[in-house]
Amino acid sequence: MKMTIYDVAREAGVSIAAVSQVINGKGKISEQRRQEIVQVMERLNYQPSVIASALTGKKTFTLGLLVPDISNPFFAEIARAVEDQSHHLGYSLFICSTDNKKERAERYLSLMQQKRVDGMIIGTGIANKSTLASLMKGRAPVVVIAREAKLAAKTVIIDDYCGGGLAASHLLEQNHVQVGLLSENEEVSSSRERIRGFVSKWNEAGLNIGADRIRICGDELVQDGKSQAGELLRGPNPPTALFCCNDLLAIGALKAAKELGLRIPEDVSIIGFDNTILAELTDPPLTTVAQPTKQMGQLAVDSLIEMLESGEKNDERIVLQPELVIRQSTAIKR
Amino acid sequence: MKMTIYDVAREAGVSIAAVSQVINGKGKISEQRRQEIVQVMERLNYQPSVIASALTGKKTFTLGLLVPDISNPFFAEIARAVEDQSHHLGYSLFICSTDNKKERAERYLSLMQQKRVDGMIIGTGIANKSTLASLMKGRAPVVVIAREAKLAAKTVIIDDYCGGGLAASHLLEQNHVQVGLLSENEEVSSSRERIRGFVSKWNEAGLNIGADRIRICGDELVQDGKSQAGELLRGPNPPTALFCCNDLLAIGALKAAKELGLRIPEDVSIIGFDNTILAELTDPPLTTVAQPTKQMGQLAVDSLIEMLESGEKNDERIVLQPELVIRQSTAIKR
Repeated sequence: MKMTIYDVAREAGVSIAAVSQVINGKGKISEQRRQEIVQVMERLNYQPSVIASALTGKKTFTLGLLVPDISNPFFAEIARAVEDQSHHLGYSLFICSTDNKKERAERYLSLMQQKRVDGMIIGTGIANKSTLASLMKGRAPVVVIAREAKLAAKTVIIDDYCGGGLAASHLLEQNHVQVGLLSENEEVSSSRERIRGFVSKWNEAGLNIGADRIRICGDELVQDGKSQAGELLRGPNPPTALFCCNDLLAIGALKAAKELGLRIPEDVSIIGFDNTILAELTDPPLTTVAQPTKQMGQLAVDSLIEMLESGEKNDERIVLQPELVIRQSTAIKR
Repeated sequence: MKMTIYDVAREAGVSIAAVSQVINGKGKISEQRRQEIVQVMERLNYQPSVIASALTGKKTFTLGLLVPDISNPFFAEIARAVEDQSHHLGYSLFICSTDNKKERAERYLSLMQQKRVDGMIIGTGIANKSTLASLMKGRAPVVVIAREAKLAAKTVIIDDYCGGGLAASHLLEQNHVQVGLLSENEEVSSSRERIRGFVSKWNEAGLNIGADRIRICGDELVQDGKSQAGELLRGPNPPTALFCCNDLLAIGALKAAKELGLRIPEDVSIIGFDNTILAELTDPPLTTVAQPTKQMGQLAVDSLIEMLESGEKNDERIVLQPELVIRQSTAIKR
């Protein structure tokens, strides 16, 4: 039997108007009451007529999330957190993955707008400034997550510069001097900041990092991380520690070290970034800089829906703090 | 500068009509020529006016993929393969994740239809038979991936029964007698078949598996796998080997064994299923039954687009063979 708005109102002990206010995101209704009504809707599996809302120009209760690579567990975990929170607030989520192909980002953004999502969360770099500008002027509000936008935009991000510094401090405390750095390509703002933060902390200690020690990896992160780490470890004055701008690069570095017969952490220390599910599984488990993935996903959705409901866009930056998680892939230099 | 159909035609050295045929998926044009034109479109970043196509009732060049949990690397890898192949054939992809909540599947299916996707790939169970029946009768063709549909439907799947048998044969060769099995919940057809195949092979060898040795885990796969494996390993006559219906459950089992101070594989052998990125990272690396994820994603998209272009639905089942990947988490029983 298909549930109607009447069933929801009766079950929740509220008026039909109150249920309608929840569905349409309008009217004065307390957050607690709203959540109670949403819970009844879920329990009864009630589905408001989204088509009707869309035709009358109202909301579609659909959000869009754009990520660079859904097979990178960091973005899969972000997607899960965003989906959870969206659903919790009564919205559905379309996830689009550009598979690291920049030209697909614009196509997906335009597609999401055509499909009339109410708002978009963007976790990819947008190469084209004019695309971004027109996006910001569009009907649907935008939140940028885990990346710096090139224009003023609502952003939920960690302090990547500080994260790079945390990794550097940890290695400095362990007496490492020769280090190698593995970065994503230079268009990835988070990688750039992590490297900048690392190098700055290293320089503060009176140490230098030669340009040839900072390696830019391509989109095949594990494979490219492995080959770049291999070159560093086989070269002259091999590094005793590697800082990798994400866990997938660090996994590549682990593979390279093992293939060369090096022990981790006795012969070489390796630090990752993101603290994905992968980090605690590697052999040895990976020391890494953690991003609060779940919190970031929640805040991005909350910010987006706040803009949607208030009708006012804002370009505030929410900056969360990263945290060093020490496992067994780093040790004092011998 | 915005590229037009004229730019594409000139660059590809073909007529505008030929480009139009590619865009609208109509007309006689060789597969090779079609791909050349698609490549030129990509290179020029040409975007056909999808809105115009949609308004005239033509295709939207959008596909939908529904998965139970995008944070499970198996489905993230399926999603990546489906996105890659969709893009290769000129389609965009919306990914929806139900976060293992069955009631969300129907909402997402209805949403995809409202958004006029040209076709859908479904990797979740659909609890409601009538939902499935109406889906099959709908405008957009459907392919089911990695799950058995409850009604006749085009399906791309592996032989899960055979996969369970492969795991059993491997453990039998290693002289294991006492085993424990970790399954997903009973509505997940792939898990049911894997368990059935395992038990059948075990029985063929004249051995029995008590019902209390087959544990059903909830949706928190790592956590529930850990607690169920822990109960088995702490109980009377603890198993010397555990077969887990996916890699996340196996990771839970690894954690449980380690917490109890058991060595893997010396004290207990553990086998997973899926051969995700996780399997080669665990300590020790996980013996697992591999699904050909990339091939499955490609075949699902190819099948869907074949139905789309021919206008004829079919309910053929494509059954691929799983493969045992032996790593270091299994050994001869001591």
